[in-house]
Amino acid sequence: MPNRTVFFVSDGTGITAETFGNSILAQFAIKPRHVRRPFIDNAEKADQVITEINGAALAEGKRPIVFITIVNDTVREKIGSHSNALVLDMFRTFVEPLEAELQLTSNHRVGRFSDVAKSQEYHDRIEAINFSLAHDDGQSSRNLAEADVILVGVSRSGKTPTSLYLAMQHGIKAANYPLIPEDFERDSIPSSLAPYKRKCFGLTIDADRLSQIRNERRPGSKYAALANCRYEINEAERMMKREGISWLSSTHKSIEEIATTILRDIRPDRLIY
Amino acid sequence: MPNRTVFFVSDGTGITAETFGNSILAQFAIKPRHVRRPFIDNAEKADQVITEINGAALAEGKRPIVFITIVNDTVREKIGSHSNALVLDMFRTFVEPLEAELQLTSNHRVGRFSDVAKSQEYHDRIEAINFSLAHDDGQSSRNLAEADVILVGVSRSGKTPTSLYLAMQHGIKAANYPLIPEDFERDSIPSSLAPYKRKCFGLTIDADRLSQIRNERRPGSKYAALANCRYEINEAERMMKREGISWLSSTHKSIEEIATTILRDIRPDRLIY
Repeated sequence: MPNRTVFFVSDGTGITAETFGNSILAQFAIKPRHVRRPFIDNAEKADQVITEINGAALAEGKRPIVFITIVNDTVREKIGSHSNALVLDMFRTFVEPLEAELQLTSNHRVGRFSDVAKSQEYHDRIEAINFSLAHDDGQSSRNLAEADVILVGVSRSGKTPTSLYLAMQHGIKAANYPLIPEDFERDSIPSSLAPYKRKCFGLTIDADRLSQIRNERRPGSKYAALANCRYEINEAERMMKREGISWLSSTHKSIEEIATTILRDIRPDRLIY
Repeated sequence: MPNRTVFFVSDGTGITAETFGNSILAQFAIKPRHVRRPFIDNAEKADQVITEINGAALAEGKRPIVFITIVNDTVREKIGSHSNALVLDMFRTFVEPLEAELQLTSNHRVGRFSDVAKSQEYHDRIEAINFSLAHDDGQSSRNLAEADVILVGVSRSGKTPTSLYLAMQHGIKAANYPLIPEDFERDSIPSSLAPYKRKCFGLTIDADRLSQIRNERRPGSKYAALANCRYEINEAERMMKREGISWLSSTHKSIEEIATTILRDIRPDRLIY
């Protein structure tokens, strides 16, 4: 039973406040109640949040934890000074030393993009999402030359969410192609991939876990049977090894961890930008 | 020309370090070179990063900015004390006051999920991605009762990336359905949506911007013509108004901003968890 509340308060989407707060909270064995308050960008909204924070402090007998990313000084200081809470303020803490280092004053901009309609980076990201969707699950072999990476692996090894994540978060054009029993019988990778082997990256997975995932979709099928999963995985790994395709296991990795590893291994240039 | 380097150094994926660093850097009118160094989890890797950092300081004549999220005390302190850089250390700064507040010691866990294979939250997120993909662009009317939200709007108003983002980042089952000229002629929303009007949320967009986006896909087409875009948008807005469907304009908003607004408006419970 949560008996303490954590607030994430921001004048933008609150995504930074949440990422920041959750990574700090992950260091503690507590399960507090989470309350997100995005778009708090004027004194009136700040007052409402302060009332909520102080209400929680009273109700729970413990002052809340408040992770705050607010650019406007007045709004931020209001919440900082009127809340009965531990306020952890990312901007105030780090912007000041950076101003001193850079000998620049900060511009108090809210959000990552000043105007998405004019941002090339944003445009490329939407293009990457469209590309990855059109090239999900081997749907299309057109324009594979444009792909930044082609994920390969057996059905349900994690290719689709990883492709979409790479596109959405990193603007990477990520196609994905299943390795299926027909490929194993023919004993060669799909012919449309042959010219692009150097762009391929494999995902594999433990047979137990794969069988469990496939059983949720098609309970009791041959497709989901442990023996069949073992067979497909062995064949896929043998094929990737022979073709010189690097791979990793998705079994215990989050989409974020898989995506970061792929970037580091096959697009190290994307780590410098 | 960038003449200063920013490093994002982490023992995990570095996503928190980047989110943190980029939101701070957005406050300054500078274009530094970005270098990401994920998975720095032992002393040897720390030494390599320190060499890189100090090399950049020497080459550029300015010490780099280093955003660091490293849980391991030894690795973190090594980088902090041996780098010729401004080191901005999120964990050291905030974990200590939180330990005092909670009267708990931190557990030094790397990453958000201890093991994704066992996490219900992670499982639900993958399910949401699969649902949103299967229900992209009105592909399927099956199981719409399961949807958390159904996005509606004219073609290219931003429904697909927003749906995928809601699924991936928030575990929301987000279907999306286009409003097309046939709907406007018939003057009613697609019949499969009628039972779910309360779950619908509309996206609209400025006609100029829509015409520009559509022209990239089908240059010179009627589909992309400004007059046609104006017509479709007017009809769609009229229809949403009549049906009592809230909407917002995606013209100047990022996917993150659209998604956050939708959550706040139609799933306020998702702001408390």
